Amino acid sequence: MSETYTPTARTRVAREADRGVYDRAAAYEILDEGFICHVGFVADGQPFVIPTGYGRIGDNLYIHGSAASRMLRNLDRGVAVCVTVTLLDGLVLARSIFNHSMNYRSVVVLGTAVAVNDPAEKLEALHRLSEHILPGRWAESRQPNERELKATLVMRLPIAEFSAKVRQGPPIDDEEDYAFPTWAGVIPLRMVVGNPIDDPRLMPGQEVPKYAREYSRKR
Amino acid sequence: MSETYTPTARTRVAREADRGVYDRAAAYEILDEGFICHVGFVADGQPFVIPTGYGRIGDNLYIHGSAASRMLRNLDRGVAVCVTVTLLDGLVLARSIFNHSMNYRSVVVLGTAVAVNDPAEKLEALHRLSEHILPGRWAESRQPNERELKATLVMRLPIAEFSAKVRQGPPIDDEEDYAFPTWAGVIPLRMVVGNPIDDPRLMPGQEVPKYAREYSRKR
Repeated sequence: MSETYTPTARTRVAREADRGVYDRAAAYEILDEGFICHVGFVADGQPFVIPTGYGRIGDNLYIHGSAASRMLRNLDRGVAVCVTVTLLDGLVLARSIFNHSMNYRSVVVLGTAVAVNDPAEKLEALHRLSEHILPGRWAESRQPNERELKATLVMRLPIAEFSAKVRQGPPIDDEEDYAFPTWAGVIPLRMVVGNPIDDPRLMPGQEVPKYAREYSRKR
Repeated sequence: MSETYTPTARTRVAREADRGVYDRAAAYEILDEGFICHVGFVADGQPFVIPTGYGRIGDNLYIHGSAASRMLRNLDRGVAVCVTVTLLDGLVLARSIFNHSMNYRSVVVLGTAVAVNDPAEKLEALHRLSEHILPGRWAESRQPNERELKATLVMRLPIAEFSAKVRQGPPIDDEEDYAFPTWAGVIPLRMVVGNPIDDPRLMPGQEVPKYAREYSRKR
């Protein structure tokens, strides 16, 4: 896990090269904190970018959806994909407009996703996807049946060609701008959880479980 | 603004068609609340998905970046792009694993982005981008100079072919699952702002401005 990855020409961070991170463990930390990815694929020459959940098992990413979905039907043909995960940490206010920035952590994975046909791997991937998004939930839910498993397509994307990009910390202004009379610094941003909302058809006596009440993406 | 848009075969929401939104005003509300998009483009047959800021002026989206960036150099050639904006509102916990979902609002815009060469439009787009992300900041910053404007590429994407998808509300379980003994409902998620952090090199006497202290994406 502490291996340093050698980027390809396609994944080397070309601009702001100091923000490039090629450590597999660092990339996995970002992938494990996020749970929404944006999947890019091409259909009839047009790129599409679709948000979806994901899970990670070892060096593979798993995404899932309806066997009928346009996105996954295309992936099933084995087209090239790009999966991007972005965590936004703050707005960076420099003195100059030009040096304004954002603090963020992102990972880009390039490759070809393939359909998971083995029933055991498929169930394990769905379990991981569920636990990745909300640990503890799987065991307390009604398990998938045969019909539902058939209606679900699971795709595996090896995390082989990837890059991560990280920007943190205060603004970096041009030296002569530090005398410009304006406030500068960082506005931190983070995702928080509100109070769980009971389903209007909740069975009497069902209390909000701890994993819902104390949900957090901090890992 | 209240016009109803007729989707193309590429933007019609095929699955969960009840989640499709083709009202331009509704799509613009989502675009105006978000400020990070994921831009998809193709280079050498490989799709790339890159997070970046954006702004909207009327029926155009603007994105910007270094004239040297791989992403914008590719867009400049006039390749097809997809810009996707996703706002995550909550986790939806159904009784069955299969019916778990998320509450979200997303917009997908397809088209061809072109470089903005007119200096007045370029400056207006940069102003809008800045005000879109942080209203009030532009006027209090050191304005862009000629060198910086030259180093910045601004791209315009007409919001002509688009779709929005919205899911809100409680879980929808299969009728027979409502008797399954588990908690069900929604865990709301939202982005919040922390206390602004002064730049370590802040000029004495510069106070955190109101637009930073009270920053919110609610529109």
